[in-house]
Amino acid sequence: MPDVTTDITVARDQAADVRFLDDFAALSAFGATPAGGVERQAATAEDGQTRAWLAAWLAERGFTVVNDKVGNQFGLFEFRPGAPYVLAGSHMDSQPRGGRFDGAYGVLAAAHAADRLRTHLADQPADAQPQFNIAVVNWFNEEGCRFKPSMMGSGVFTGKLALQKALDTTDVDGVTVQEALEGLGELGAEDVFGGGREVASYAEIHIEQGRELDKTGTTLGLVDSTWAANKYEIAVIGAQAHTGATAMEDRHDALYGAALAVVAVRELADRFGEELHTSCGQLTVVPNSPVVVAREVHMHLDLRSPSDELLAEADALLRKQFAEIEVKAGVEIERRFAHTWKGQLYQPGGVELSGAVADDLGVSRMLVQTRAGHDSTNMKDMVPTVMLFIPSVEGISHAEAEFTADEDLCTGVDVLTETLARMVRGALT
Amino acid sequence: MPDVTTDITVARDQAADVRFLDDFAALSAFGATPAGGVERQAATAEDGQTRAWLAAWLAERGFTVVNDKVGNQFGLFEFRPGAPYVLAGSHMDSQPRGGRFDGAYGVLAAAHAADRLRTHLADQPADAQPQFNIAVVNWFNEEGCRFKPSMMGSGVFTGKLALQKALDTTDVDGVTVQEALEGLGELGAEDVFGGGREVASYAEIHIEQGRELDKTGTTLGLVDSTWAANKYEIAVIGAQAHTGATAMEDRHDALYGAALAVVAVRELADRFGEELHTSCGQLTVVPNSPVVVAREVHMHLDLRSPSDELLAEADALLRKQFAEIEVKAGVEIERRFAHTWKGQLYQPGGVELSGAVADDLGVSRMLVQTRAGHDSTNMKDMVPTVMLFIPSVEGISHAEAEFTADEDLCTGVDVLTETLARMVRGALT
Repeated sequence: MPDVTTDITVARDQAADVRFLDDFAALSAFGATPAGGVERQAATAEDGQTRAWLAAWLAERGFTVVNDKVGNQFGLFEFRPGAPYVLAGSHMDSQPRGGRFDGAYGVLAAAHAADRLRTHLADQPADAQPQFNIAVVNWFNEEGCRFKPSMMGSGVFTGKLALQKALDTTDVDGVTVQEALEGLGELGAEDVFGGGREVASYAEIHIEQGRELDKTGTTLGLVDSTWAANKYEIAVIGAQAHTGATAMEDRHDALYGAALAVVAVRELADRFGEELHTSCGQLTVVPNSPVVVAREVHMHLDLRSPSDELLAEADALLRKQFAEIEVKAGVEIERRFAHTWKGQLYQPGGVELSGAVADDLGVSRMLVQTRAGHDSTNMKDMVPTVMLFIPSVEGISHAEAEFTADEDLCTGVDVLTETLARMVRGALT
Repeated sequence: MPDVTTDITVARDQAADVRFLDDFAALSAFGATPAGGVERQAATAEDGQTRAWLAAWLAERGFTVVNDKVGNQFGLFEFRPGAPYVLAGSHMDSQPRGGRFDGAYGVLAAAHAADRLRTHLADQPADAQPQFNIAVVNWFNEEGCRFKPSMMGSGVFTGKLALQKALDTTDVDGVTVQEALEGLGELGAEDVFGGGREVASYAEIHIEQGRELDKTGTTLGLVDSTWAANKYEIAVIGAQAHTGATAMEDRHDALYGAALAVVAVRELADRFGEELHTSCGQLTVVPNSPVVVAREVHMHLDLRSPSDELLAEADALLRKQFAEIEVKAGVEIERRFAHTWKGQLYQPGGVELSGAVADDLGVSRMLVQTRAGHDSTNMKDMVPTVMLFIPSVEGISHAEAEFTADEDLCTGVDVLTETLARMVRGALT
């Protein structure tokens, strides 16, 4: 790590905390649900409202707001014209009846941190300006519920997903990403980065969505690795029949086959213990009539592990079990990978930098893994990256009851501010 | 059975067969699917088209067409003004991608049979006219897929279901039965029967939807009893969470609970053998996102048996298994009966009458049970009833591949015609 001047002076003060919490409350009103969550799936009207609000917030403070061709929303601020950017952010889209912290906290924290840097450096002479500029990002469609796959915006940005494929993706009503973004006026015409404007490094802060920090009473998680994930699209093919009249032995019940698969997937996790998470969250029955044996079931399976080897072993077992289910239920099971990523390390330099910041600010910290994918999972393969977690009470996430205390929210903004202050001065590059 | 004059002369001739098959082909065009089935769920545009076609067909032949307050469609023809009616019919609505024979065959067979009677008796003097009149009926919403419960029209007609409750029933889009029927101009203003106009007896013919007739090479099934059925609405309540991040032990996965229930329901059938049919055909996941552990699953279970005692035993076992699933999956399971009926006998007189007709016409016949509910299941509790089956190849039903040979279709119309001829002359009353 280069030797850099720290900027402890940009850290926390009470007025900054109040401003942040006020803004977070304002942001949480878009798509608010009665039980304290938000529902603003990608490129819906509610997502559009949060994007408009963020654009106005950034523009008022002198950031140049520009969207790229897949709807990633950037707020750019130059300290040194033409220099590369330190990028910070997360996503503002949510799950159906999701929590108000997941993603949105990270974008707002980045916006506030960048603005504190801007304010702090405004009075400095030109030769005291940092070597990198700062940019805030709101990645498009991190959640992947309305449009699959997840982490779509950062996937296109990092070249892992083709732009046109992303734009052509449809929701259940057949609306494409392109149509939805154009409808909101949120589809940009340029690439924003590349072609002269470069990203030097990336930082993201997010609620943990697990309970390690909450359980141990630690304020900051330094993410040093990400779990591997296998996501599958499964089709179970049976034959339509009468639920009452058709003899049991004559049935090819796609839903029975699917239910056996859901149980098998869950039992895989029981078998491997804490090192494997498995789930089926999406399952659609065709024709879904009370008196018709289902002819097809479509489902989405999600297997995650810190170990690529264990995941491969689970995959092989699942394949074997599906073959048995095909015989038992008299159905055919088609499976294909929808999205996979290997378990990977975050750059040790990012862990070291944010650890030093935490120590300097007197914030308790520990190393953590991320089981969930984040936009930083993509970004870390492109530029040096810092990924930070703050506690999520009882690990609740993707649910309205998701909660993080104000104190932790504000401490997180401080740590991010100081981390970015060091990054624009060359730390991590 | 009273001693009645038979009317063998109304039975089959080649021209009548051609007319019937032509009309059946015309009828099968409404809501036709590419694979030879039909899709015309209750009170959809396609159901409206079949109803309009039937109304025109009946009116052209001198029947008075009138709908009652729940959309049951009647074609009335008087031989003897003011006399009670022998009613015959079935239903023309279908399952999603259903077969073209289920229900529609029975209505058209009744229409042709009634018309043959009308033609045959037109030249007879007044004192040779039969003691009862004839009416054709197309019962509203027998299938119960768009609007639950099934057998809705005959349920209201026989006083088993309150009219207002039926009219207020909504589909998944929140459209009520009343709105849907009014939208088609198919909601009648009167009761049609009762208040001076009475039903003397009822006859229905239907494809078997099982394989007893097909397996034994028998042309006619005389239905002597109906299986008992328990239909349940089930809600599995869990808690929304992140599919990847949330620790397995912290999950309350509604879809895992539901999958265990679907498997348990199927295994009940394995345990009791041929005397129990079980199914889950409808299952809806909330919120149904690929990366969200489901918070709720709603499903519809269907258990049927010829034995009320066995069904009660299965019900008790299911209750016990659901309690175990609640613990295993960390969910709550709410269950309520949506619709139940006891196993019941059809009147032996109806079986005797149709058996005699079959013998007189030289048609092979056997006693059969019905596992499916039919409108006659309701009607037999109100008036003397005949229920007939013709073969369904391989027992396929509620599917596009449903098939019955022309020969069997035409023989069925003959048997029904002769049966009705005897019924209007007083048989069965």
